[in-house]
Amino acid sequence: MAHEHLTDSCLFCKIIRQVHNKVKGIICKGGTNAPMDFLLCRGEIPSNKIAETDKRGTNVYPLLPVGQLVIPKYHAEFFHQVPEDYLADLLPLAKKVAVAQGFEQYNLLQNNGPMAHQVVKHVHFHIINKPNKDEGLGIVWPQQQVTQDQLKGTLSKIKEKL
Amino acid sequence: MAHEHLTDSCLFCKIIRQVHNKVKGIICKGGTNAPMDFLLCRGEIPSNKIAETDKRGTNVYPLLPVGQLVIPKYHAEFFHQVPEDYLADLLPLAKKVAVAQGFEQYNLLQNNGPMAHQVVKHVHFHIINKPNKDEGLGIVWPQQQVTQDQLKGTLSKIKEKL
Repeated sequence: MAHEHLTDSCLFCKIIRQVHNKVKGIICKGGTNAPMDFLLCRGEIPSNKIAETDKRGTNVYPLLPVGQLVIPKYHAEFFHQVPEDYLADLLPLAKKVAVAQGFEQYNLLQNNGPMAHQVVKHVHFHIINKPNKDEGLGIVWPQQQVTQDQLKGTLSKIKEKL
Repeated sequence: MAHEHLTDSCLFCKIIRQVHNKVKGIICKGGTNAPMDFLLCRGEIPSNKIAETDKRGTNVYPLLPVGQLVIPKYHAEFFHQVPEDYLADLLPLAKKVAVAQGFEQYNLLQNNGPMAHQVVKHVHFHIINKPNKDEGLGIVWPQQQVTQDQLKGTLSKIKEKL
């Protein structure tokens, strides 16, 4: 597949184009809702390709034994910037990898923006195993009160723009 | 669209079939990694349909002003049980809703299994706004050391089963 939608500067584009085969350590703060730092990887981790789809272009890479990355072969910082045909290809491939891994409980997570825990500025989905309560992804979702009027407002705002 | 892949007992199936139009309060513990309870909704929240695709069957519902649910019209507890054509339809619709909402930073999250924070046993993707550090999704991802041999083992195990 041609790489016309990839850049020369992005780490994930380089990995997809196979001009770089390692992910360097990325340690990030989890924000105020997450009291601990969380770790994507430490040191240099080889970015071996697990699977790919040629037609629309999606790659899967291992990052940790507990998780994989599904990366579209299209350079975009945010999910909403990825064309629909690339998006349609992502989840069926993620399913294959989840099945091959034999995960029983797990999370799919895709982050947009530094506040929302995105580190590498190229859209990617994490497939994260949850083998027990202590490993894998923990989430913190502060409580929020909401009125029916607020909900109606949100709904009509979205419908207007759809 | 016919509802041959929906059940009579699942809350989300009922909402899709429009025989039930409210989501009752669901408060769940976030597990040991998440020190606070997190809240999907409190009280009864109307499950208004925002958008749907008929062909393969995906619905989007609002749950909170900060987030929406994208729900396949196919009853499956786990992501890896959903047929590929339903999966392919999910993200393009999620993109439309994220764009209509005007979210700048946000997360997509899909949970599989009670330890992995799944509450309703019908596959669903959360689209969660992250307007500031305190609201929206916080994540906790404990550090894990990994050797290159472990990574190679994971890789060959997956490739064997793909």
